[in-house]
Amino acid sequence: MTLKLWTSPLSWNCLRAELVLAEKGIEDVVEIPADLIGGKHKANFRDKSLFGRVPLLEDGELVIFESRAIARYLCLKYADVGPKLMPEGTDAEVNGVWEMWLTLEAVEFDSHVVPVISETIIRPALGQATDEAVIGRHKPKLLHCLDVLDKVLSKRAYMGDTEYSLVDIFYMPCIFTASRCLDVFEGRSNLKKWWVTVSSREAWKKAVKPLDEGYSQVIPGWNK
Amino acid sequence: MTLKLWTSPLSWNCLRAELVLAEKGIEDVVEIPADLIGGKHKANFRDKSLFGRVPLLEDGELVIFESRAIARYLCLKYADVGPKLMPEGTDAEVNGVWEMWLTLEAVEFDSHVVPVISETIIRPALGQATDEAVIGRHKPKLLHCLDVLDKVLSKRAYMGDTEYSLVDIFYMPCIFTASRCLDVFEGRSNLKKWWVTVSSREAWKKAVKPLDEGYSQVIPGWNK
Repeated sequence: MTLKLWTSPLSWNCLRAELVLAEKGIEDVVEIPADLIGGKHKANFRDKSLFGRVPLLEDGELVIFESRAIARYLCLKYADVGPKLMPEGTDAEVNGVWEMWLTLEAVEFDSHVVPVISETIIRPALGQATDEAVIGRHKPKLLHCLDVLDKVLSKRAYMGDTEYSLVDIFYMPCIFTASRCLDVFEGRSNLKKWWVTVSSREAWKKAVKPLDEGYSQVIPGWNK
Repeated sequence: MTLKLWTSPLSWNCLRAELVLAEKGIEDVVEIPADLIGGKHKANFRDKSLFGRVPLLEDGELVIFESRAIARYLCLKYADVGPKLMPEGTDAEVNGVWEMWLTLEAVEFDSHVVPVISETIIRPALGQATDEAVIGRHKPKLLHCLDVLDKVLSKRAYMGDTEYSLVDIFYMPCIFTASRCLDVFEGRSNLKKWWVTVSSREAWKKAVKPLDEGYSQVIPGWNK
């Protein structure tokens, strides 16, 4: 059955779902563009998405929102297609440790990187003033998190384990976007090496293209 | 083998791990008190916890931190003891939808409730000034999230599905703490009904007691 994905090239959250689709080679998808700036899609959308956010996936009668949940659903549904991207089975130790790395992305990274990106490049692009207090609050915690990730990647090749997985995929969209507004890799050679590896994947090159092109039109100096 | 849990009665994050232990009836645990205010535990702790946070669980050689990952690990390890608390098996739809509700707690609730609690009751208790701008930024989003949860609970008994699970457990510590500094339940009858149900569980009464007693000594008006 054809999947329906409400998505936008301007959303780094949507990029998580798009990247899993690309890694799995799933092409039977109708993409419904969401009007992120004007919000015009929301009239048809409100009953489906409790928080009014994209991405949102419809698979027949099933509705799933929140990019990380969509990514996980796609990995479970298409477990036998393409890379696994998550542990198989229910071994407590394997899953517990992997879920730890997965959860840290939302709790220690996303909660700080998104305010920094928003205040540094998104709000100015919308003609809104940057709130320096927000940057002051979140940027030190973001930089600390990047230092920790660099340390983690001194001991293994990928964020979650010895293989490329959803943990890498969860980080990639905001690492990429943040790299346009701060020195993500400077002094963090392990993080840089990881980035060269994961961003050279064909699925990433395909999935990131619309976001890269979209932002290059609205953010001054995007492709500096 | 005896589990070792680095924990503190002043941490609502630790309460997630404590609640799973209580629900599962696991008593073979040595609890190591963390000095949250003075940070004196950190010298022994830094190599184990990359972010220096509690709770942290040691199970033999295995080290797991981040409360939600510890909770999940305990559910997988003790799957046959006490309530299940998470779906069994790897069905994509069942797990995908449940993981959506689980993920929303961190992304839509925790990221707003923690700054509100911190600025409203924690910082004043430490003699620090409240940053009203932080409250102004996060409180409207928190209240919106509570409204959404009330709507969700008009259609079913629990946060994640028809059964009590980790989704409820993830919300409970901050719902409880937030109820000391804002009208969490006012005008939200479904959320109130859910709270009466989940907070009447014997495991909750046991797990919350140290936090309740700890805060009643340092937060003026805690047991108002």
